[in-house]
Amino acid sequence: MQALTVERGSGRPTLRELPRPEPGPGEALVRTLRVGVDATDADVLAGAHGRFPEDEEYMILGHEAVGVVESAPADSELAAGQPVVPTVRRRAGAGEDGALDMAAPEDCLERGIAGAHGFMAEYFTSPVETLVPVPRAVAPAAFLVEPVSVVEKALSVATASRSAVDWSLDSAFVLGAGSLGLVGLAALADRGVDPLYCLDRRERPDPAVDIVERLGATYVDGRETPVTAFAERHDPVDLLVEATGHAPHAVEAVSALAPGGVAALLGLPDSDRQEVDLGRLHRDLVMYNRALVGSVNAGVRHYRRAVETLVAFPAWLRDRLAADVFAVTDYEAAFDARADGGQGRPLKTAVEFDTL
Amino acid sequence: MQALTVERGSGRPTLRELPRPEPGPGEALVRTLRVGVDATDADVLAGAHGRFPEDEEYMILGHEAVGVVESAPADSELAAGQPVVPTVRRRAGAGEDGALDMAAPEDCLERGIAGAHGFMAEYFTSPVETLVPVPRAVAPAAFLVEPVSVVEKALSVATASRSAVDWSLDSAFVLGAGSLGLVGLAALADRGVDPLYCLDRRERPDPAVDIVERLGATYVDGRETPVTAFAERHDPVDLLVEATGHAPHAVEAVSALAPGGVAALLGLPDSDRQEVDLGRLHRDLVMYNRALVGSVNAGVRHYRRAVETLVAFPAWLRDRLAADVFAVTDYEAAFDARADGGQGRPLKTAVEFDTL
Repeated sequence: MQALTVERGSGRPTLRELPRPEPGPGEALVRTLRVGVDATDADVLAGAHGRFPEDEEYMILGHEAVGVVESAPADSELAAGQPVVPTVRRRAGAGEDGALDMAAPEDCLERGIAGAHGFMAEYFTSPVETLVPVPRAVAPAAFLVEPVSVVEKALSVATASRSAVDWSLDSAFVLGAGSLGLVGLAALADRGVDPLYCLDRRERPDPAVDIVERLGATYVDGRETPVTAFAERHDPVDLLVEATGHAPHAVEAVSALAPGGVAALLGLPDSDRQEVDLGRLHRDLVMYNRALVGSVNAGVRHYRRAVETLVAFPAWLRDRLAADVFAVTDYEAAFDARADGGQGRPLKTAVEFDTL
Repeated sequence: MQALTVERGSGRPTLRELPRPEPGPGEALVRTLRVGVDATDADVLAGAHGRFPEDEEYMILGHEAVGVVESAPADSELAAGQPVVPTVRRRAGAGEDGALDMAAPEDCLERGIAGAHGFMAEYFTSPVETLVPVPRAVAPAAFLVEPVSVVEKALSVATASRSAVDWSLDSAFVLGAGSLGLVGLAALADRGVDPLYCLDRRERPDPAVDIVERLGATYVDGRETPVTAFAERHDPVDLLVEATGHAPHAVEAVSALAPGGVAALLGLPDSDRQEVDLGRLHRDLVMYNRALVGSVNAGVRHYRRAVETLVAFPAWLRDRLAADVFAVTDYEAAFDARADGGQGRPLKTAVEFDTL
C-alpha cells in the first residue's frame, strides 16, 4: 500500500510502498479515507516535535484521520463499512492506569507524532476501543473530528473548572482564526454562546474572517485591538479559548476575562522570554476568581462529543473546511499549502487515500 | 461601646467610643467575642487596600470575627446566645444578582476593608443570612473561620476545576507557613492528603515549622529548595496552594505540579516586573493539562464547611493558633506583633472584646 512517511533527517514527506498492516488481537483493519494536515505535522517533519517509532528509520505521518472499517474482531461493535475516526494516543509499553489524554506526553505514544506510525496510508490498524464511529453523511469532513475533539476537551475542562462557582457560559473570545480557532468558534456558536468574538491579524477580504462573521461572531483585528485592550472596547468574557500558540496570550488572556472567567489554553509555543508584571497577573487571577486551564489531546468521550458537534455544524462550514483535499499523488501540495485561509489560500488541507 | 477604628491618613488603629449599633430589619445584633488580625488589616491601616465607608472619616477595623447573638428577628433561626461568625462581603447598593464571593471587588462592600465598618467593636449588626453558627466549644478559636473559609473556597474551586478529568487529590504542596498556609495545610491533612509539603523560609527551631511537622507534612526550606526545584527533589503534586503573596509563585507553581495538577492562588502581591519564559509557562500548562485558579473571599457555604473543618482540627492546633489574644486595652500589641510564628513571635493575633 502507499504511505506518506518522513525519514530521519529528511524534513520532507515521502511516498513509500509498504505492506498492508495485519490487525493484531482486538484490532480492526481500517481503509483510510482522508487525513488532515496541521501545524503539528509541520513540526514533526521539521524534527521539532515528537519522535520516531523505536528502531524505525521512518514514520508514517498523520493523526487527523477518518477511515472505513475493513474488518473487525467478531466480538466488537464495529461492522465492516462503518466510518470511524481513530484517537491519537496509545499507551507506551505497560503504561500507567488512568486516562491517556491526561498522562504526561513522555509516557505516551502518539500516532503519527511520537513513537508510533500515523494514519497517512491506504490502511491502518487500531484497537477497536480507539475507533469512534461517525455517520456516513459527515465522513468526508470527519478528519476534522480530531481538532474538534481537542476543542471539546478544552471546553469540558474549562466548564468543569467553574462548576463550583456562580458562572455561566454566555460570552466567549477565541484567539486565532486558524482551523482550530474556527472549529472552536463553531462549537461555541453551536452551544448558543453569544456574544462571540474571534481575534486574528488578517486583512479583509479574508475567507477566515468571512467564516467568523457568518458564525455570528465579531472579528477583532489584533493589530488594532490587542488582547490586552479587548476589555476596554468590548465586554469581558466568561471564556477565552487560546488557539494561536502565541506565548504572551497565556498571560494577556486574563485581562479579557469577566470576574470568574476562565481561559483555556491550547497552543504549544516555543520559548519566549519577556518582561511581565507577575504581581499584576497573580492579583488579576486571585482578585477576580479567574482561572487558566491548559488542555491537550482528547479522550474517546471527547471524540464522541466532537462527532456530535461536527454533525451539528452548518453544512457550509463542513464543506468549506473540507474543500481543499488533495490526492495522494499530489501530497506535496497538501503539506506545502500555507493553510491559514489567507486570500486565495486554503483554510485547511487533507490528503485523500480513498472514497466511501 | 468601644471600637477599634482607623482614621483617614492616620495609618494607626485608634480606640473610639461609639454608640451601640441598632439592628435594621432582618438584622441580628451580635456581641463581639474576638476578632483576628491579618495582613489585609495592615494594608487597610496603611491605606494600601480597601476604602472608607462613604462620608465617614473613620472605619471600624476587622473582618475575622466571632460573636454571640444578642438579639435576632423572631422569624430567624438564630437564637440569642448562639455563637456566630459573620461573612465579610456585602452588596454595594442594589448590586448585581449572583454569588457575592464571585463578584468584582469594586462591586462589593467588605466589612472592615472596603466601604463598610468592620467587626472590631463590642457590638455589630449583620443580616441574619450572613451569620454562620459555630459550636460553643470552638467559639474561642472561631475568628479563624474566616481564613479557613478562604481556604475552603480555594479547595472547592481547585477540586471542581479537575472534575472533568482523571485526577484525585493525593498529594499537595502549600506555599507559606503563615497562619493562612497553616490552616490550609491542616484542612488538607484533615482530608487525608498524603504526602503533604509546606514551603517557607524559616530558621529552625520555629513554631510554624513545628506545626507543619506535627501535621505530618514535610517542611521545605525555600532557601534550599525553591519552588522551581521542588519536582526534582520530591514527587510533583496534584494540588499546590499558594499562600505567600510572592508574585513569582503564580508562575513557579506550575513546575511543581504533576500532570493534570492544579495550583490555587490566594495571594495578592504588588506589582513585580520580571523576565519570564512565557512560552515555557504556556507549554507547561497545555502539555501537562495543568490549571491555575485564583480564589478570593468565600460564600456562606464555604463558611459552613470551614466551621466543620475548624471542629475537625486537632485541639492543639486550634489552641496554638488562638494563643495570642489581646485585650482591647492592649490592641496595639495585637496589631504591632510580627505575627509570623518566628522564634518568640505569635503565629496569629486577635483582639478580645468579650468572653462567652
